[in-house]
Amino acid sequence: MSDNEKKVVLVIGAGDATGGAIARRFAREGYVACVTRRSADKLQPLVDSIRAEGGEAHGFASDARKEEEVIELVETIERDIGPIEAFVFNIGANVPCSILEETARKYFKIWEMACFSGFLTSQAVAKRMVKRQRGTILFTGATAGLRGAAGFAAFAGAKHGIRALAQSMARELGPMGLHVTHVVVDGAIDTDFIRDNFPERYALKDQDGILSPEHIADNYWYLHSQPRDAWTFELDLRPWIERW
Amino acid sequence: MSDNEKKVVLVIGAGDATGGAIARRFAREGYVACVTRRSADKLQPLVDSIRAEGGEAHGFASDARKEEEVIELVETIERDIGPIEAFVFNIGANVPCSILEETARKYFKIWEMACFSGFLTSQAVAKRMVKRQRGTILFTGATAGLRGAAGFAAFAGAKHGIRALAQSMARELGPMGLHVTHVVVDGAIDTDFIRDNFPERYALKDQDGILSPEHIADNYWYLHSQPRDAWTFELDLRPWIERW
Amino acid sequence: MSDNEKKVVLVIGAGDATGGAIARRFAREGYVACVTRRSADKLQPLVDSIRAEGGEAHGFASDARKEEEVIELVETIERDIGPIEAFVFNIGANVPCSILEETARKYFKIWEMACFSGFLTSQAVAKRMVKRQRGTILFTGATAGLRGAAGFAAFAGAKHGIRALAQSMARELGPMGLHVTHVVVDGAIDTDFIRDNFPERYALKDQDGILSPEHIADNYWYLHSQPRDAWTFELDLRPWIERW
Amino acid sequence: MSDNEKKVVLVIGAGDATGGAIARRFAREGYVACVTRRSADKLQPLVDSIRAEGGEAHGFASDARKEEEVIELVETIERDIGPIEAFVFNIGANVPCSILEETARKYFKIWEMACFSGFLTSQAVAKRMVKRQRGTILFTGATAGLRGAAGFAAFAGAKHGIRALAQSMARELGPMGLHVTHVVVDGAIDTDFIRDNFPERYALKDQDGILSPEHIADNYWYLHSQPRDAWTFELDLRPWIERW
Repeated sequence: MSDNEKKVVLVIGAGDATGGAIARRFAREGYVACVTRRSADKLQPLVDSIRAEGGEAHGFASDARKEEEVIELVETIERDIGPIEAFVFNIGANVPCSILEETARKYFKIWEMACFSGFLTSQAVAKRMVKRQRGTILFTGATAGLRGAAGFAAFAGAKHGIRALAQSMARELGPMGLHVTHVVVDGAIDTDFIRDNFPERYALKDQDGILSPEHIADNYWYLHSQPRDAWTFELDLRPWIERW
Repeated sequence: MSDNEKKVVLVIGAGDATGGAIARRFAREGYVACVTRRSADKLQPLVDSIRAEGGEAHGFASDARKEEEVIELVETIERDIGPIEAFVFNIGANVPCSILEETARKYFKIWEMACFSGFLTSQAVAKRMVKRQRGTILFTGATAGLRGAAGFAAFAGAKHGIRALAQSMARELGPMGLHVTHVVVDGAIDTDFIRDNFPERYALKDQDGILSPEHIADNYWYLHSQPRDAWTFELDLRPWIERW
Repeated sequence: MSDNEKKVVLVIGAGDATGGAIARRFAREGYVACVTRRSADKLQPLVDSIRAEGGEAHGFASDARKEEEVIELVETIERDIGPIEAFVFNIGANVPCSILEETARKYFKIWEMACFSGFLTSQAVAKRMVKRQRGTILFTGATAGLRGAAGFAAFAGAKHGIRALAQSMARELGPMGLHVTHVVVDGAIDTDFIRDNFPERYALKDQDGILSPEHIADNYWYLHSQPRDAWTFELDLRPWIERW
Repeated sequence: MSDNEKKVVLVIGAGDATGGAIARRFAREGYVACVTRRSADKLQPLVDSIRAEGGEAHGFASDARKEEEVIELVETIERDIGPIEAFVFNIGANVPCSILEETARKYFKIWEMACFSGFLTSQAVAKRMVKRQRGTILFTGATAGLRGAAGFAAFAGAKHGIRALAQSMARELGPMGLHVTHVVVDGAIDTDFIRDNFPERYALKDQDGILSPEHIADNYWYLHSQPRDAWTFELDLRPWIERW
């Protein structure tokens, strides 16, 4: 049964360090963290860690590419837990490939995962938020959303699509009370993936040369907290020594 | 059997005024115009008009969203007609809709038609061109490829995707000898669609207030003609009285 | 005599509501607010209000367009008050005029005031900051810094120049430990000027339709507080109902 | 005395290879080439070469930073030679310098030369053109006009200013019949300067790796020739092997 006092943050793609940190950050502020990824079991450590800190969290196995699953997810949360006040779309798919080698299947899959899912989930949530005339929609973007690069046609395509979606939503839904934002993360993040695959990059951590997921999360919280007379649509985040 | 002297321009999406004008323009310069759309019968008038001017043209029914059809199309042309020296991707899908009303099916269809097709076709052609270390790839873009707008999330997403594709290809394939370009068409074009649906807009034709397909086509030819020490990646086209 | 514990925020152009609010915000965080404008007397109310809140503030009459005055200002502050840890360039000059009517004198004055001053002051401060390998440089930008508009050639020129300066500094000085940022303020600000000259615009205040200087100031403080592994170069700020 | 049939192209900054090539190109099309630089003697070879080809050319010593000289120049040409149908602003000032070392004098000089001159000259010409409701204004831009870079604060500032000017003029004067354009030259140009100072770069000439002034000039002519229903505001030019 729904508790009217509860505020929910829904994080789509909470499997990685960034999504997890965002969920934890909002949970610390009193939000119920609803986190999703395709298979729920991998979410348990995150849910447990939030609960261990005294927060409330729920993990959902949900495929963000399937409209029915998305609709059901949003319905379940809104009915059983509380209104989604903040929504985070955090699915990436940074798989580089020469444009000459890229397969149609992979080009599609990257778009489906990193862009189409963003449309399905943000729309389902926006439909609820507009009735309440409030809510924050946060998209995790990348430099590839601003310009294409050799070897990144598929990823850049998906990230450009997300930025187009975010901008179109912000322009349409802003005057309805929804704060839509796009965070351009530019640089390596402190994750197991970077540590295991790019050890030289990871070594920059000693001098703050890679992004801390917690610090990224602080920005999502900050954006959500902005009063509506001074909303940010887009900000970039990069380590001080990053070349750009 | 292939005639080595022949040069082919392949225009994907030659159903509208712009695609047709581009095909005619290249045909006048001696190129064999290979034009496609989903159903071939509608192509006949274009093919006939090119032939009537003394040019060579071939119409192909081909669904640019189907990888096998695309691969076969390119193979057939290269084997039976000649090398594709210029390639034009000209499929649009400017179907506005509130982000709150957009269906998943339509969002997908617009992307599939206006972006995924662009990937499939340009890649199939690029694979041929890189072996010859020459060739021009021209994408028809739109202002929606540069920024999102209220009511245009799906179209902007597809057009952003095309621009990301064009930019990624240009950066990767440029140094291999391929000239990849993106033409930003900003304004109404002199078409039956505008005449029938936006009569007030169409009335601006008297003062050159809407884009002539022939003049758009001149720019495609111009870009194709640029020597490789001074290539343009992107140019915009708009009527003199257009607000922007 | 300098007190090593003191941290200084220097606000160039503290005459308007935004500059004043930024100075107050940093003063509340324990920074000594050094504020400037051409004539010191008008600064007294701001200085007084900061002191009334228990903060420390100093007003300086200083013409930011005069290199010697700028150098002396920075030297005086660093010697007598403390190290400048945060620097804000907040001089605007939004004076619209048709390009056909603009005078050479005004075009120059607008640039000198809103861009050249920014170069002189930020450079003088940056030279100090690089020795300490830390410090934040914040530029107040505007939409006119991103694109030109009819009637805004001079203002857009100055604001484009500031953005070019900010971006060039960020890229050069970031890896030296300096956080350089550019805040794009897009919309009317709650000032006497707007109240007196644009009453219809000002009436939007009731629904948070114009920017609160205090909320703008919060963003400057936030940017200054970002840890160096996740720095923002640019963010935009606009009221929720603003069209863009 | 003025010959009503004559059409003039005025090239400000015809001292370098690009300005000279543009003048020659227009002269070949029948335009009277009026070319300027600060000292007229260096213009003589260009004037002679145009005349040797059967064209008409006039060299003017004129300091584009001095309003009176600019006004007089335009008056003289319009009165004695013919209406200025095409105007080219081609003064650059690509002098890199660390932001920490840049002098106020040099920062100002670079802006005065590469931006303020552009304002003075284009405005003086625009005032004539608007009365005739036609004319083309072409600005030579650079990548530095689109983004700042370490060591390029002054140059980027001037070039951003020119782009802001061009965009503001285009938006205001387009609907009055004036075609305002901005050409982004991205790469080394085939000049004595590059040959003497960057021999490794110059060696790329063998493979078309540096821009030919003549090919750049072709684009200026092309832009001038565009019919008004399909005008380009901006195009970029770079060698095929240029990284960007």
